[in-house]
Amino acid sequence: MENERTEIDSIGEFGLIERIKNNFANSLQEYTVKGIGDDAAAFQPNKEDEIIVSSSDMLLEGIHFDLTYVPLKHLGYKAVVVNISDIAAMNGKAKQIMVNIGLSNRFSVEAVDEIYKGIQLACKYYNVDLVGGDTTSSPSGLVLSVSILGSVAKDKITYRDTAKPGDVICVSGDLGAAYLGLQVLKREKEVFMVNKDMLPQLDEKSYLVERQLKPEARVDIIEELDKAAVVPTSMIDISDGLASELLHICKMSDVGANIFEDKLPMDRMALETATDDLNISPLVCMLNGGEDYELLFTIAQDDFPKIENNLKIIPIGYIQDKSLGVKLISRANQSIDIQAQGWKHF
Amino acid sequence: MENERTEIDSIGEFGLIERIKNNFANSLQEYTVKGIGDDAAAFQPNKEDEIIVSSSDMLLEGIHFDLTYVPLKHLGYKAVVVNISDIAAMNGKAKQIMVNIGLSNRFSVEAVDEIYKGIQLACKYYNVDLVGGDTTSSPSGLVLSVSILGSVAKDKITYRDTAKPGDVICVSGDLGAAYLGLQVLKREKEVFMVNKDMLPQLDEKSYLVERQLKPEARVDIIEELDKAAVVPTSMIDISDGLASELLHICKMSDVGANIFEDKLPMDRMALETATDDLNISPLVCMLNGGEDYELLFTIAQDDFPKIENNLKIIPIGYIQDKSLGVKLISRANQSIDIQAQGWKHF
Repeated sequence: MENERTEIDSIGEFGLIERIKNNFANSLQEYTVKGIGDDAAAFQPNKEDEIIVSSSDMLLEGIHFDLTYVPLKHLGYKAVVVNISDIAAMNGKAKQIMVNIGLSNRFSVEAVDEIYKGIQLACKYYNVDLVGGDTTSSPSGLVLSVSILGSVAKDKITYRDTAKPGDVICVSGDLGAAYLGLQVLKREKEVFMVNKDMLPQLDEKSYLVERQLKPEARVDIIEELDKAAVVPTSMIDISDGLASELLHICKMSDVGANIFEDKLPMDRMALETATDDLNISPLVCMLNGGEDYELLFTIAQDDFPKIENNLKIIPIGYIQDKSLGVKLISRANQSIDIQAQGWKHF
Repeated sequence: MENERTEIDSIGEFGLIERIKNNFANSLQEYTVKGIGDDAAAFQPNKEDEIIVSSSDMLLEGIHFDLTYVPLKHLGYKAVVVNISDIAAMNGKAKQIMVNIGLSNRFSVEAVDEIYKGIQLACKYYNVDLVGGDTTSSPSGLVLSVSILGSVAKDKITYRDTAKPGDVICVSGDLGAAYLGLQVLKREKEVFMVNKDMLPQLDEKSYLVERQLKPEARVDIIEELDKAAVVPTSMIDISDGLASELLHICKMSDVGANIFEDKLPMDRMALETATDDLNISPLVCMLNGGEDYELLFTIAQDDFPKIENNLKIIPIGYIQDKSLGVKLISRANQSIDIQAQGWKHF
């Protein structure tokens, strides 16, 4: 496999599409009426009270990923997962994706196969169909733009602008690890650039690296909330960091919030790597790190007992009146304004 | 306007999204439950017999467009139109779009505004909502990836793989003009490169240039077929040229076809430009030119009388058994195999 290199030129666009299509042939999920190969994909919800939800994300080489440490298969997987996470954040189930791909002549057919292997793995794991998209050449790097369709019952859809004072703020898992994973990968890249014989020492950082390279969408949380008969009052996925996402919910819901530093969940290895190894504030990693793809949601106080014993769901604070601001209560019991940093790519 | 230049950096990603959102605020079409500003857009069809159709296309600078002769506003308009054309080719009505945009630091906020002005113009003209998308920086040129959602009644959806021997093959308008428009623009660019004082002489070629820079989707044809109670037996939009699209229909429907050179529609100015000016075969322009965004469709013989008097619909041949091949009958009455050339961008 590693020795093969087929120029995309030699099979052409239609050859490339054929190749992709053949690998995804027998995967029609519920709702999919028409997949790859027509002007548009077709999607039919069975029930009138079902809402179709759709989202789209674009990943550009040199901005969102560096192929010196991101394997192509992981990239394909992640491109799908970040979109599934968006649908989960609507309390919905992802059903179909479309993938637009732009490829420079640096990429061989085998490289494209690797990307689509990752896409396929994600499609299988999350039960979604690849139903179309666009393949094109690119003047420089790799471009991946994924669109997704999903559905959710009308009375269960969750938005960002519906949090209410008194609601409990929850997250679905530990924060900051994906960001730390990226720092570890960047460091190893630098070491490798200096000494090409040096093999990367990533074993003990495997959790962090995996959080960065192979994030998962928290569809399990959506299912568990459903089983517990809880519909969050608002929900968003954490792609840009907790601070940025919480500010989105507060701004759009016209409310304030208090979250507590000592409630914020961080993995032990992440904590050690931040403090002992990279000398970064663990709090900054959790608030501004991004790419964790955990869910941030608010739950009405009456509903809270229904999920209180679910160890995956971590309460970190509560929504309050707008006039009280969006604050972090530190371990020293100081109230600190939360600032958005987000992921600055302009 | 031309003197203003605001760096995107200075307003940041959220500032950019805010700016885009404000311009599209009050445009919720039928079906749109949630637009820009959440993890996903939400879309609810009213009837159970409605099928959601979705498509996605990506335009990359240096591959699909050259900003030395494509105005940004036109580019935004075209990016939407090519997607609406895909929905029309399913016999559907476009309802919502999502726009992913990648911008290098070459582009100012004003430049982005121009792109979105074109997008907005198309949204208004075709009655679609901009409901989301992704904004990001790009290492080199401009990247535009548009996804679209539309709907169509279950018994009216048209695919590519359902043409039957005996069906009449039709196109919705003249062919080759968009390709010739591109050649004219390229020629003017070369002249301009040699002598920068030279103003482009495009007035008399305005139809060709407009076909290239500001194509329209044939939603009027979809409405007229509906009024005439005709559901095509198959349909595709002509983005890669008649030859390529006809071969798609034939391959997928497992049929052959005969089309007649003397029936193929070409605009007079296009014909003159091809023969007198650019010395290109008019037939090659029509068969392989591409980007006309006309509809190519097949109609059952029984239905043909219902649209026979519609001057916009031009019959160009008929579907035949697969064994008879896909042929062009020339003016000299020769039967010539139709070859795909398409738009080679790898």
